[in-house]
Amino acid sequence: MADKYEQVIELAKRRGFLWSSFELYGGTAGFYDYGPLGAMLKRRVENTWRDIFVINEGYYEIEAPTIGIEDIFIASGHVGGFSDPLTECQKCHEAFRADHLVKDIVDNPDTLSADELTEIINKNNIKCPECGGKPGAVYEFNLMFKTSIGPGGKRAGYLRPETAQGMFVDFPRLLKFYRDHLPFGATQIGKAYRNEISPRQGVIRLREFTQAEAEIFIDPRDKTHPKFNEISDVVLNLYSQAGQAAGESQKMSIKEAIENGIIAHEFLGYCLAMTYQFLARVGVSPEKLRFRQHMKDEMAHYAADCWDAEILSDRFGWVEVVGIADRTDYDLKAHAKQSETELAVYVPYDNPKKIERFTVKPNMGILGPRFKGKAAKIANALKALKPEELSGDVIELTIDGEKITIEKDAVAFEKVTEEVHGETIIPHVIEPSFGIDRIIYSLLEHSYFEEEAVEEGEEDKTRIVLRLPPEVAPVQAAVLPLLTRDELVKPANEIVKMLRKAGILVAYDDSGTIGRRYRRNDEIGTPYSITVDYQTLEDGTVTIRDRDTMKQVRAGMSDIADNVCDLIYGGKSFEDSGRRV
Amino acid sequence: MADKYEQVIELAKRRGFLWSSFELYGGTAGFYDYGPLGAMLKRRVENTWRDIFVINEGYYEIEAPTIGIEDIFIASGHVGGFSDPLTECQKCHEAFRADHLVKDIVDNPDTLSADELTEIINKNNIKCPECGGKPGAVYEFNLMFKTSIGPGGKRAGYLRPETAQGMFVDFPRLLKFYRDHLPFGATQIGKAYRNEISPRQGVIRLREFTQAEAEIFIDPRDKTHPKFNEISDVVLNLYSQAGQAAGESQKMSIKEAIENGIIAHEFLGYCLAMTYQFLARVGVSPEKLRFRQHMKDEMAHYAADCWDAEILSDRFGWVEVVGIADRTDYDLKAHAKQSETELAVYVPYDNPKKIERFTVKPNMGILGPRFKGKAAKIANALKALKPEELSGDVIELTIDGEKITIEKDAVAFEKVTEEVHGETIIPHVIEPSFGIDRIIYSLLEHSYFEEEAVEEGEEDKTRIVLRLPPEVAPVQAAVLPLLTRDELVKPANEIVKMLRKAGILVAYDDSGTIGRRYRRNDEIGTPYSITVDYQTLEDGTVTIRDRDTMKQVRAGMSDIADNVCDLIYGGKSFEDSGRRV
Repeated sequence: MADKYEQVIELAKRRGFLWSSFELYGGTAGFYDYGPLGAMLKRRVENTWRDIFVINEGYYEIEAPTIGIEDIFIASGHVGGFSDPLTECQKCHEAFRADHLVKDIVDNPDTLSADELTEIINKNNIKCPECGGKPGAVYEFNLMFKTSIGPGGKRAGYLRPETAQGMFVDFPRLLKFYRDHLPFGATQIGKAYRNEISPRQGVIRLREFTQAEAEIFIDPRDKTHPKFNEISDVVLNLYSQAGQAAGESQKMSIKEAIENGIIAHEFLGYCLAMTYQFLARVGVSPEKLRFRQHMKDEMAHYAADCWDAEILSDRFGWVEVVGIADRTDYDLKAHAKQSETELAVYVPYDNPKKIERFTVKPNMGILGPRFKGKAAKIANALKALKPEELSGDVIELTIDGEKITIEKDAVAFEKVTEEVHGETIIPHVIEPSFGIDRIIYSLLEHSYFEEEAVEEGEEDKTRIVLRLPPEVAPVQAAVLPLLTRDELVKPANEIVKMLRKAGILVAYDDSGTIGRRYRRNDEIGTPYSITVDYQTLEDGTVTIRDRDTMKQVRAGMSDIADNVCDLIYGGKSFEDSGRRV
Repeated sequence: MADKYEQVIELAKRRGFLWSSFELYGGTAGFYDYGPLGAMLKRRVENTWRDIFVINEGYYEIEAPTIGIEDIFIASGHVGGFSDPLTECQKCHEAFRADHLVKDIVDNPDTLSADELTEIINKNNIKCPECGGKPGAVYEFNLMFKTSIGPGGKRAGYLRPETAQGMFVDFPRLLKFYRDHLPFGATQIGKAYRNEISPRQGVIRLREFTQAEAEIFIDPRDKTHPKFNEISDVVLNLYSQAGQAAGESQKMSIKEAIENGIIAHEFLGYCLAMTYQFLARVGVSPEKLRFRQHMKDEMAHYAADCWDAEILSDRFGWVEVVGIADRTDYDLKAHAKQSETELAVYVPYDNPKKIERFTVKPNMGILGPRFKGKAAKIANALKALKPEELSGDVIELTIDGEKITIEKDAVAFEKVTEEVHGETIIPHVIEPSFGIDRIIYSLLEHSYFEEEAVEEGEEDKTRIVLRLPPEVAPVQAAVLPLLTRDELVKPANEIVKMLRKAGILVAYDDSGTIGRRYRRNDEIGTPYSITVDYQTLEDGTVTIRDRDTMKQVRAGMSDIADNVCDLIYGGKSFEDSGRRV
């Protein structure tokens, strides 16, 4: 029997959600098109993300180019370290990931160097999986797509491997935009690229994919969140470091997890909650969702804490779809170094602090007669000394290459109280990073149901239904005249017009039995089907059918647009939308 | 004095609409970032486009990759012909477009070959504009960004120079999606790329830009439009071929232009109207908009008609922002040839047609005895002949390399009446193609006003205001407590919450005088500013200030979200939103 992945992909291809790219030319692994329904679903999922991160949290979206210049990716480490170990069969010249070839032999193949992998392949006499030939020496293959900007190939350009860098590079502009106040955040939804060696997992591993990322710049001394109490009781399925060692995840409120030192701090906890709420809202099953903490050896050396949201899929098991990390000041420091620009924030204190410090006061009455023309230079050099440099019996200076020894009597010390109004700090970065394509696939799989259903006018007893949340369903309403007769088609077209004016995506369908048309719409997740029948002509009512329960109500035609909008966006219950049929 | 371009770009940079990309690393020509307000403005403009093309016309959006394989661009002609003539200075090695170097010397430099350009440069002793050196021989530089897919550089990939090809390549899938019915359309909004040799026009000429394109597949025998009467009276500023010859454009209804043979047909006229309505809706001034027809020598050889929407800008004059073309069957034929796949539609007739034709009936009684073993082969060859091949005195055939002459007596003719139920046709393509970035720049320029204004609490008499349509304004409402006091801040925050829940992008601002804060919001085009004052605490009302008129009304706080939504989306007039202050 077909597994669920095959079932979902079959439906997705047939009905216009997902198509293999370039199919007309035989297709290419790692590329998928969103068809008419898929693109609309994706847009709605992205807009839900925007509603949470942009509208509600106030982390404005920006749009940086997908092509980046080399400096950026030197700073980010992608030029140096973004690679997979590659081996090419010496006979058929097919390329493979070397770590995949040895995965049954060693435990952590992704920690091995190219040389170590070569040795293991040779020692174990591993053959090419395609032709049985001998794999060649392993080398690191950089996964960025490279191109060049302008003529002559003089200026390297890379397709960005993540949207994040665009926000880091714009840090100085963003800081001004937010008028120097921490915390602030920027988001991006856009394409990112990864030139996979040999992608073999369909829509799960793409060479071109969509990320939604937020980079939230916070004060490193204060990782609380102002709205923490709104989400502190949210219960998550946590698969912590300790949980992984013990082999089991644990349901726990965010508050409790922070109190127990499992989640590092409030701000990260808040991001986990937002992630949970977003995924559940777009149609991921909460019971197939867990948050896995990175193990110590898998976490980046600079990260303070890092969690992946993982979704359970039928074929691939737990798949990472979101990463949420406290990246500390790593990214800003890296770009500051590469660009030779300070990337920091001056944070004023609420109340100025009084700080006592010693200053050096050269005694010119002694220095003047003793050093004559050099006295002024020496005095300045003395003022620049730090307290610890004055601790010896005498003071040693080098002035214009000449070593000079100065007795302590030529120097007085003064205690000064200064008012300090603030300090310059490098913000820490909290980064929730979403893989939109995997989320789309997951919610399709979690929404896909085949069930036995008996319905008027439909002979096929098996019904396929996509139980997508109405907010993300691509087609929001179907309008169906019971028969293809002018007197029914005309009011149906009026309804189409009214719904479209309200911004609702409508499918008009008048071909086939009404049962067949309901099924056709169930299959693509259309939440509401509106049927115009002969009673419509008598009393101006239509039937609305609910996709999930197949129940019907009769409701007025004149305010159908408001009614449907309330059903989709306003949280109105189906029972309240009309009277039971 | 700064020209308008400088004024707009200064504002756009300062307030977060447009930033030079990679500024931290010195920037690179041809790349711009959309900052927080620019990205939101862009999103809203794109969504308005979607409302028209996707929701209302039913041309579903798809999303194909930005990287394409070579076959696609061989078929589209981009591998062969998408280039600009390039010359490199032999001294400073700076690259230039050769046609730009000779533009003061020849009339139509873009029609010249590389050799002709080289000759003109040499003959006229043209020097490098940077260093005075001698430009080298001109060659054609392909403008696609090239990369390679997978390891080994074996498979070329290109960043798409237009989104259009993604729709053509998906034609077989789209045809099935629309259940074989013409007309149907697909749209795409996404990145496209053009590796300009040396872009020098800021946001007007980008190496990475956003297109919104529709490919509408229609029956070539019927170029009427079902909704033509809805737009036939729309009056456009047409700069036709004849108008250009005469040097003046002409205002004319679409109906009249079609009747006079100026616009080729209804379908194209309808697309011109949609384009006009879209541009006006997002904030382009109708009086700075014209539709220019391509001249005969500038139009692609396959195009039936082609119009550009052009927008008048202060610095660049008339700038092309949209192209609307009847591309006939060119694209489908090109991909059919390259992919060796039929790209066509079987169109059934409403009523089957009866067609009479002659068929050949070989007389086996004669052929059998005469040709023995060869008789069957000869009979089949005879059946395959067309009527005109039977017109001679005898029939000449070549069977297995042997010439055979057959007398007419061996052949009888039969008149057959066949019922034909339909025919296979190659659809024609109507393509409206929008350059989103240029539209964004244009509407910023057209919305930008500096005016004298006296307002309470603001000393600066000059007010900068962006008169953006509320539907596309990035920040939709500002919420301002009159003073930073808890009793005012608290209700202000409640309003923020209510508006955000309704999906409104709100800016909360409590710093500086109220006058300063109004001006700050005028400058970014915020249509409505809501102020919480001490009267709010007494009667639960707030003031709403209209950006354009600076008038204020008092309105209830409890239904403020509905009120603002109606102002932005519902066409409610400001006067109706509260009582005059």
